[in-house]
Amino acid sequence: MPQFLDTRDADFEPRFRALLAAKREDSPDVDAVVAGIIDDVRNRGDAAVLELTEKFDRVTLTPETLRFSSDEIAAECAKVAPEDKAALDLAAERIRAYHVRQMPQDARWTDPDGAELGWRWTAVSAAGLYVPGGLASYPSSVLMNAIPAKVAGVERLAITVPTPDGAVNPLVLYAAHTAGVDEIYRIGGAQAVAALAYGTDTIAPVDKITGPGNAFVAAAKRRVFGKVGIDMIAGPSEILVIADGDNDPDWIALDLMSQAEHDESAQSILITTDAEFGKAVAQAVEKRLETLERRAIAGASWRDFGAIVTVASLDEAVALSDRIAPEHLELCVADPDALSDRIRHAGAIFIGQWTPEAIGDYVGGPNHVLPTARSARFSSGLSVMDFLKRTTLAKMTPDALRAIGPAAERLAASESLEAHGLSVTARLERLNR
Amino acid sequence: MPQFLDTRDADFEPRFRALLAAKREDSPDVDAVVAGIIDDVRNRGDAAVLELTEKFDRVTLTPETLRFSSDEIAAECAKVAPEDKAALDLAAERIRAYHVRQMPQDARWTDPDGAELGWRWTAVSAAGLYVPGGLASYPSSVLMNAIPAKVAGVERLAITVPTPDGAVNPLVLYAAHTAGVDEIYRIGGAQAVAALAYGTDTIAPVDKITGPGNAFVAAAKRRVFGKVGIDMIAGPSEILVIADGDNDPDWIALDLMSQAEHDESAQSILITTDAEFGKAVAQAVEKRLETLERRAIAGASWRDFGAIVTVASLDEAVALSDRIAPEHLELCVADPDALSDRIRHAGAIFIGQWTPEAIGDYVGGPNHVLPTARSARFSSGLSVMDFLKRTTLAKMTPDALRAIGPAAERLAASESLEAHGLSVTARLERLNR
Repeated sequence: MPQFLDTRDADFEPRFRALLAAKREDSPDVDAVVAGIIDDVRNRGDAAVLELTEKFDRVTLTPETLRFSSDEIAAECAKVAPEDKAALDLAAERIRAYHVRQMPQDARWTDPDGAELGWRWTAVSAAGLYVPGGLASYPSSVLMNAIPAKVAGVERLAITVPTPDGAVNPLVLYAAHTAGVDEIYRIGGAQAVAALAYGTDTIAPVDKITGPGNAFVAAAKRRVFGKVGIDMIAGPSEILVIADGDNDPDWIALDLMSQAEHDESAQSILITTDAEFGKAVAQAVEKRLETLERRAIAGASWRDFGAIVTVASLDEAVALSDRIAPEHLELCVADPDALSDRIRHAGAIFIGQWTPEAIGDYVGGPNHVLPTARSARFSSGLSVMDFLKRTTLAKMTPDALRAIGPAAERLAASESLEAHGLSVTARLERLNR
Repeated sequence: MPQFLDTRDADFEPRFRALLAAKREDSPDVDAVVAGIIDDVRNRGDAAVLELTEKFDRVTLTPETLRFSSDEIAAECAKVAPEDKAALDLAAERIRAYHVRQMPQDARWTDPDGAELGWRWTAVSAAGLYVPGGLASYPSSVLMNAIPAKVAGVERLAITVPTPDGAVNPLVLYAAHTAGVDEIYRIGGAQAVAALAYGTDTIAPVDKITGPGNAFVAAAKRRVFGKVGIDMIAGPSEILVIADGDNDPDWIALDLMSQAEHDESAQSILITTDAEFGKAVAQAVEKRLETLERRAIAGASWRDFGAIVTVASLDEAVALSDRIAPEHLELCVADPDALSDRIRHAGAIFIGQWTPEAIGDYVGGPNHVLPTARSARFSSGLSVMDFLKRTTLAKMTPDALRAIGPAAERLAASESLEAHGLSVTARLERLNR
């Protein structure tokens, strides 16, 4: 059973704080190992990548077979059932339609001093997408990472996906193909991140690396940050549902379990204005846990990190939700739009009872790569912005320089940066001649 | 003297590569020390901060004197010369006017399936701004960090600025006051970053930390990344000037020196279509280096990392510039706007000979916190976006769920995530009853 909290209980605040602070993830200290792997790949390139792939994935490759050929991709895609293809195509289309709207505008204007100012957005030239192998090899994540990159205008998009013992997920290759991925390499782990960041003879380096991975991948991304851009370091998944008593307990139970089944470290929380409804949801979860395929995982997550919090009002729910800053927030109340408008810190909001969070994982359109572990306080889900960068523009006319140059001279002097000041002075002297 | 390169030389490519790869910064390995400091501040809070401040800054503080009082701020501001105040006010006004235009739009629409989709931007609640003490304590940087935060809507903006041996820069306090900073603490180093990230009894934790600092500050920011958001890890400054022969060599020399004088690790590069002009600029630099106050620093930077590259055409200049991905790019050519449009990777572009880079450091309006060390390939300068985050929104109607729910069920099954699928199935069953 999960924890039951009630804001009217005397010990609510310490218990809620403990819930917020719960360390859900063991972070094994793999940093030294990863540093060694990265150095090895930097020094020996393909040879290191091939050896490490043999060691960790038990797959023997050559520089020629590191990359899936177009024939191999076509052969794998042919194994995908038409219904799966149709579902992935629908998802891709909806994700693309959503992300196209995110494209930011360039700007250019002349200000009252006559200075022309503005900015211009351009795409990253090359991006690498890490795709996990094995259990967590999700084709939906390929779409969610690759489509924003391609919408942004990234010309070269490379995927690395390990094939432990030679296992390939055809749906991952189909998703990559559908999303317009240009290169697919059968490597994984820190060695894949290192190869993408620094390049080898076979794999050209990229400018940005995104995508989820295990502790080795996360540590490697953290290490190459600066050499290349990275997306967030994702933690275990979370859902917060705010529900009144006028909901089907089983629906809410399934929504909670849809995060819990990801990972024993996942966290599912229900905040409700109706204590009896909270109990009914707990019972519905227990019933579902009798039969769910992933009941061992979902049950452990729910037992260790699940919580049902009873609040006196939706005002309290809003305040607690912003303290949690959930990755996924589902609002199942009478006026979910009004409640949504009051929420400040959340990765994604699912508005109303007809919007189960799982819709967002696949076909809603918004990205499912979202900030975890309270980082929605300061960061956003993946978007086209992750694959774009902005160049600021400034153009002075002689008049503009006359107007604002003297202030720059003054500030340069105050910061003891003489050449800064002189670069303005020399031009103003010409104008004043 | 700097290096002279010419694209027509046989050894150009290896020499240009060496220039790109030059390791300009010694990164002392302070990570272990910083880890210890962060743990100490997490465990002992104010007591650790006070001890470390006494040790590193030789200043004895108490929890009551950690923060500048409003009387102290007013007294420091009163020391600032009216001309400096006017210059900082002008800079603040122009920076504000530029950054207000960056505010992104919320969006909400209904798609053909009846799904309501959108996103909403909200500000980070609390941000911390690190300001270095001593030589690199620049009031302009206070404006460049604080104004975007306030324009974004950050309610609580805290600054930390060390006061080694008690030294305070009144202009920094005036800039902070002008920019609307809410709290100013006289601490620095890794201990300041730790206090901002984790909080102490006196300093409430923030959600995002920005601002430049030394190796200890950079290592601390890297370590607290995830617990809070951080901006980029800035490296030494850089400028690339692309100039034809129709320029005043002394102006270009001063522009090159305005970066070189920052730091011995700074890098100033001229690309020119006119080899004779390149030589004239080199001579003008030597002349200026005879008298510049910071000639020791500027001279070392120019000697060790400066370069003058002669190209056969502006096409070549564009290609080399994008490989450099400069922090600052100045275009002093006949049609600088046309050239600007062709540049893809640059932090900021200064268009035309009347736009010395120093204008952008102070009063242009765009931010002067810009990506260094070739990171303009994948990242942007500081902006209001650094203090905002986006929440995605999705709302299904029964009809929308009927239309796209089955694809979600199919994909959930393909990823063996049964509860995901059932959360959709349960709702579709109700609709189909």
